[in-house]
Amino acid sequence: MSNQPRDILYFPPSSRPFLDPYLPPSSDDTHTTKENELSRPFTTLTFATSLDSSLSLAPGVRTTLSGPQSKAMTHYLRFRHEAILVGVGTAIADDPGLNCRIEGASGYEGQPEASSVEFKDKNHLDPIQTETIRQQQDLLHQPRPIIIDPNARWEPRESSKIIELVKQSKGKAPFVITSKSTSPPEEARNLLEKYGGKYIALDTISSAKDGAAHQHFDWTLILNVLATQENIKSIMIEGGGSIINSLLSEQRYTALIDSVIVTIAPTWLGQGGVVVSPERRVDEHGYAIPASRLTDVKWYPFGEDVVLCGRIKGVN
Amino acid sequence: MSNQPRDILYFPPSSRPFLDPYLPPSSDDTHTTKENELSRPFTTLTFATSLDSSLSLAPGVRTTLSGPQSKAMTHYLRFRHEAILVGVGTAIADDPGLNCRIEGASGYEGQPEASSVEFKDKNHLDPIQTETIRQQQDLLHQPRPIIIDPNARWEPRESSKIIELVKQSKGKAPFVITSKSTSPPEEARNLLEKYGGKYIALDTISSAKDGAAHQHFDWTLILNVLATQENIKSIMIEGGGSIINSLLSEQRYTALIDSVIVTIAPTWLGQGGVVVSPERRVDEHGYAIPASRLTDVKWYPFGEDVVLCGRIKGVN
Repeated sequence: MSNQPRDILYFPPSSRPFLDPYLPPSSDDTHTTKENELSRPFTTLTFATSLDSSLSLAPGVRTTLSGPQSKAMTHYLRFRHEAILVGVGTAIADDPGLNCRIEGASGYEGQPEASSVEFKDKNHLDPIQTETIRQQQDLLHQPRPIIIDPNARWEPRESSKIIELVKQSKGKAPFVITSKSTSPPEEARNLLEKYGGKYIALDTISSAKDGAAHQHFDWTLILNVLATQENIKSIMIEGGGSIINSLLSEQRYTALIDSVIVTIAPTWLGQGGVVVSPERRVDEHGYAIPASRLTDVKWYPFGEDVVLCGRIKGVN
Repeated sequence: MSNQPRDILYFPPSSRPFLDPYLPPSSDDTHTTKENELSRPFTTLTFATSLDSSLSLAPGVRTTLSGPQSKAMTHYLRFRHEAILVGVGTAIADDPGLNCRIEGASGYEGQPEASSVEFKDKNHLDPIQTETIRQQQDLLHQPRPIIIDPNARWEPRESSKIIELVKQSKGKAPFVITSKSTSPPEEARNLLEKYGGKYIALDTISSAKDGAAHQHFDWTLILNVLATQENIKSIMIEGGGSIINSLLSEQRYTALIDSVIVTIAPTWLGQGGVVVSPERRVDEHGYAIPASRLTDVKWYPFGEDVVLCGRIKGVN
C-alpha cells in the first residue's frame, strides 16, 4: 500500500522553466514596488478559458475545461505563491479547496498523512491548540486563501472543503475581505478564527452600474493591506469572471498585475457562459481601441491546451 | 531596382510542415466524401481572434489583430486552397482583396509584373478578350473568392480592390452567392461577368430569429454546388462572425468542416467586439454542454501569436 496521499499532483521539472520568468522572486528577495506606488504583493493573474473566452458554461456551474497537465500546473503556481484570491461567486459555486496538492507542499509530502487535528471552539483555546493554529500558519507551500466577499455572502462551515483541508493540515483557513458596512454573522467569524482565518473589513467605493448602486473594492487598497498588514509577498488571482474583468478593465488596476498566465482549452463553450472580456476602451475621439495587450509573450503547448504567459503592455 | 512586387509575402518553408496535416490533399487526389454524404470541397475554417474571441473591435471595423507572420500564414493557406469564402459583411466593411500574395502565386512570381490587362464591356468581347478571361481562370494559386450575400448587398465596382487585382492578373473575380428571391442589379452582374465572376442563385431557408424572419443558406447546399457545378476541390472559410458562428452552431454543419486553423493574438479587444461563439448547446435534460471541441490538436507559437490546428471532435 502506498503512503502517498491519493490526490497528490506532480508537475514535471521539465515543464517548470518556461513559467519561471513569470513567477514571484524567491521568498528571500523582497518584491520591490516602483516609486510613488503603494507596496503590494507580486501579483499573478491566472485562469483557464475556452476558445470563446468562457470560464464556465454558466454562472455557478463548475466546468472542467483544461486537461490534467494544466490542473497540475495551477497547483504548481499555488506552490509558488503565498496567497490565492477568488471572488465570492467562485467560493459559493465551487466549494473550492484553494490549497496546493503538489508533492512537497504540507500534507502532500509523500509520507503518511498527518492524522487529523481536533480543533475546539476558539473560546476554549488551550495552549496546545494555540500552537496548532500557529503551526497551521506555517504550512509549507500552502497558500493563504483570500475571498473577496463585500457582503459576507459566503458561509464558512465545518464541512466546507476549505475548512476540511485545514483540519487535515493540507491547507490554510481563508481571509475573507468584506465591506466595512457589513457585519458577518458571529458564528461564521468564530468558525474562521477557530481555524486561523478571519474577516478583514475594508472601505468600498460606490459606483453606478446599469442604473443600480454597486459596491466594490479598490484593488490598490486590497493588495496594499495584504502586503502591509498580512505580510503577503505574492498572490495569484484565480477568478472568477467579475474579479478578472474588474482587474482588466482599468489601467490603474492592470498596472498592479506583474504576470498573466492563461490556459486555453481547444473547446467552444458557446454563448451564455461566464466570459472574460474587459470593458470596452475608447480613444480620445470615442473610437474603440483594444482594451489590453500582453507583452513578453510566451506560448507553451501543454497536452491539448496551450499556456500563455505574458505581462500587460505599457503598464509595467 | 527590385523586380519583386512590393506587396509579396514570404512564408518560410520551415513553418509549413506543422500545417500540412490540416491542409487539402494535393490537387491530384480527389477529396473523398463519406458514404451518404453529398460531395463537397475539402473545407478549412480559419480566422484570427483576440483572447476574448473577437474578430474585430466592432461590426464593420477592420482590426489588425495578428502579426506579420500570421498574415503570411493566411496567404499561404490561400495558396493551398482553390477558393476562399467570406460573408457580405466582410466584403462591405473591408473591401478585401481575397487574393494570394505568396511568392509563386500568379502576379507574385518575383518577376516583372505583368502589365495590366484592358477589359472591355462584356457585350463587346472579342476573341482575344475571351482568351484573357480564360487565362484569368487559370491563375496559379489564386483562390476563387466566394461571397455569401443573400440579398446582393455588396456592390462590385471597377474600383473594388478585388476587381483591381483581377485587372492586374493578381486574383480572380468573385462568385457571389445570392438568394433565388433576389435580383442583383444588371450593372453589377455585367461587371462581375466582364471579369470572369458571376452570381450564383441558391434556395434559402427561412427561420425565425429574435422574432423576425431570417433568410439563410444551407451550408450543405452551398458546398455541394461549389463542388459539383464549379469543380472547387478545396475551400477556406475566413469569416466574418456570422459565417463562422453559423457553421459552428449546428452539428450537421460542423460535420462539413475538415480542418480548423485559428490564430490567437495576445490582446483583449474588450466588450462590444464581433465575437466568435457558437450558439449554446444543451443536453437532453436542458443543461448547457460545450458547443464544440477540437481533436487532433496542435498549437504552434508564431511570433507573438499562437496558431491552433485541429479537427472538430465527434463529427469527422
